[in-house]
Amino acid sequence: MNPPDFAPHRWEKLGEESLAATRIFNLRRQRYRHPRRGDARDFVVIDSPDWVNVLALTPEKKLVLVSQFRFGIDDFSLEIPGGVIEPGEDPLAGGLRELREETGYAGRNARIIGRVHPNPAIQNNTCHLVLVEEAVPVAAAQWDYDEEIAVSTLPVDEVYALAQAGRITHALVLDALLFFAPLWAAAKGGPVI
Amino acid sequence: MNPPDFAPHRWEKLGEESLAATRIFNLRRQRYRHPRRGDARDFVVIDSPDWVNVLALTPEKKLVLVSQFRFGIDDFSLEIPGGVIEPGEDPLAGGLRELREETGYAGRNARIIGRVHPNPAIQNNTCHLVLVEEAVPVAAAQWDYDEEIAVSTLPVDEVYALAQAGRITHALVLDALLFFAPLWAAAKGGPVI
Repeated sequence: MNPPDFAPHRWEKLGEESLAATRIFNLRRQRYRHPRRGDARDFVVIDSPDWVNVLALTPEKKLVLVSQFRFGIDDFSLEIPGGVIEPGEDPLAGGLRELREETGYAGRNARIIGRVHPNPAIQNNTCHLVLVEEAVPVAAAQWDYDEEIAVSTLPVDEVYALAQAGRITHALVLDALLFFAPLWAAAKGGPVI
Repeated sequence: MNPPDFAPHRWEKLGEESLAATRIFNLRRQRYRHPRRGDARDFVVIDSPDWVNVLALTPEKKLVLVSQFRFGIDDFSLEIPGGVIEPGEDPLAGGLRELREETGYAGRNARIIGRVHPNPAIQNNTCHLVLVEEAVPVAAAQWDYDEEIAVSTLPVDEVYALAQAGRITHALVLDALLFFAPLWAAAKGGPVI
């Protein structure tokens, strides 16, 4: 292994150019120079708006879940509500908007409990993880044209059990459960996982 | 909200075509038909080999961490070892290979503790989460040309504290910590998070 005092270099960004644009992200080539070697290298990055995922806790201490067909894995996926934050939109507001649009739920005491990078190696955005309490149905859901969502609620501990059993596989949903674990343990007075 | 018995449709895949190829993933347009509406719609998917992340636990119950410059976020990131599984490679073998290449560590009792989808909406691959015990340095690291990695070890509970404090932000690394939590709680006889 390398010596304990080894520090990786910070590469110097020389420029970038767009390779392709899609509805929800752009593909970008970034050119970097290694500060010691001096040579230039290209790396492709997925340039995306920030995302938000929402843990909505009902008065009965259940979590609001959504199931939908996902084109990436070509299959259904059990998740928490979430989506893309709009330009200029506050992440917390974006989370509450997605919750309401996808499920018709709204709640109180909304706050960000974590922020993660979906993939620091190849992707530049942040996913904000939001917790909302006292969530109840307040309106009809308003789906996008291609959205179809089954909404359900499940006791928190059962959601953690589903996650550990491999029934919830969305990496960013599982991150929300990691950040929520100490809060839920404090609320119920015992360990979660 | 939609009625409780609502079930989203499974879209029918009509075909796909490649939009762009990079060193580590391909951009693909997938065409789907909605089974009830009947219209065809295009969705762009990031087509990628599977990935693997490795929790390597030392005999002193520390985890092996790596810090490197990440081009996606244009900054350094504190992570666990991992990388891309090679064509035909077993995920567990791939994890042990990445661990050894990036850090020079090898261990025993390697097993997969979780499998996640980095992003079911737009990405088709799986990230396998591996646990290795009794990990010790056995060789010099063997980095790829553009890799520079600072290797360190940290007590498990301190790693969880860093995660909760927002100092570890890689979504897939945090997933590994979620799946490891019940195993670590059992090993140390108390709650982790």
